Amino acid sequence: MTMEFYPRSLVSLIKHLSKLPGVGEKTAARLALHILRSSDEDAKTLSRNILEVKEKIRFCSKCFGLCETDPCRICLNKNRDHTIVCVVEQPSDLVALEKSGAFKGVYHVLHGALSPMNGIGPDDLRIKELVGRITQDDIKEVALATNTNVEGEATASYLAQVLKGYPVLVTRIATGVPVGGDLKYLDEVTLRRAMERRESI
Amino acid sequence: MTMEFYPRSLVSLIKHLSKLPGVGEKTAARLALHILRSSDEDAKTLSRNILEVKEKIRFCSKCFGLCETDPCRICLNKNRDHTIVCVVEQPSDLVALEKSGAFKGVYHVLHGALSPMNGIGPDDLRIKELVGRITQDDIKEVALATNTNVEGEATASYLAQVLKGYPVLVTRIATGVPVGGDLKYLDEVTLRRAMERRESI
Repeated sequence: MTMEFYPRSLVSLIKHLSKLPGVGEKTAARLALHILRSSDEDAKTLSRNILEVKEKIRFCSKCFGLCETDPCRICLNKNRDHTIVCVVEQPSDLVALEKSGAFKGVYHVLHGALSPMNGIGPDDLRIKELVGRITQDDIKEVALATNTNVEGEATASYLAQVLKGYPVLVTRIATGVPVGGDLKYLDEVTLRRAMERRESI
Repeated sequence: MTMEFYPRSLVSLIKHLSKLPGVGEKTAARLALHILRSSDEDAKTLSRNILEVKEKIRFCSKCFGLCETDPCRICLNKNRDHTIVCVVEQPSDLVALEKSGAFKGVYHVLHGALSPMNGIGPDDLRIKELVGRITQDDIKEVALATNTNVEGEATASYLAQVLKGYPVLVTRIATGVPVGGDLKYLDEVTLRRAMERRESI
């Protein structure tokens, strides 16, 4: 272990930084030494920011996106189309869609995807709350934008099944060749689907 | 920018995390979301660790390595050979050598290497203090273990020059093919040097 040779408080910081995703012990040591060399002001700000995020950020009671004031800015925005709800797995997916600028409706964040292997069933996701919104609010379309991997597809199928009993249009985000993509590097399933769904130009 | 779509305190954390070396905005967002999802306890510990490192860790007044109590454990260790001083650029180099277990003397950390391009001259490094140790303590050998890149070599040459006037043996860490190395991936300079310095077996 690299750590033993550093002073105790530095070892403790390295240990905790290496719990972060994608951060091994060597990277953690590099980050810790950087923090040690940074200004008192920078270190204090980083330390405070970590606490603030935990204190201030909560889930929007409507869409379960991240917010500091509930409901979130998107749910409060009168200029958005509240009759279309886009369902995503994680807050980061919501942000990716917002960045694309392609969607002007509202969101619903499931906080995960169905994954029997990991013991994640329908009750672990915000599905009940989604159904609640459909029964209470005037929602015309539910656009399923869960990931296109196994868990995401299973979740979309499950939701499509659940929502069959409600008077809403259920749609799924399109699969195909990514723009700028190179066909020879693409997996067969994507390519086959893209070919099957070819459109006249 | 990805960040704008996240709540303000999260944006602030992402901004500060992305100042860390090798951490871009996307990685910073991933780390921030992980911290947000982690337990209150874990977040508090990380936050506190950052402050503690800045508060507790200082430079050893003898070798300028990192320590919580001055002098450091290595300088205090009576079982080590205090007549051999190994000169390194950074505390992380000291740790790398300690890990190797090959050195049982004491260290001197320069905190950098000569780099005229970046405005780092002899006065910016702990060279004066190294000379001070040589004049005061009973030191027989100074082993230069600065990096083998341009700056490290320049620093070693400079130190060898400076130390000429003192009754100490000045040595340099050996260059050659790394153990487990593949000749075809090695740069020409290393290979040429390794060939020139070949030894009988």
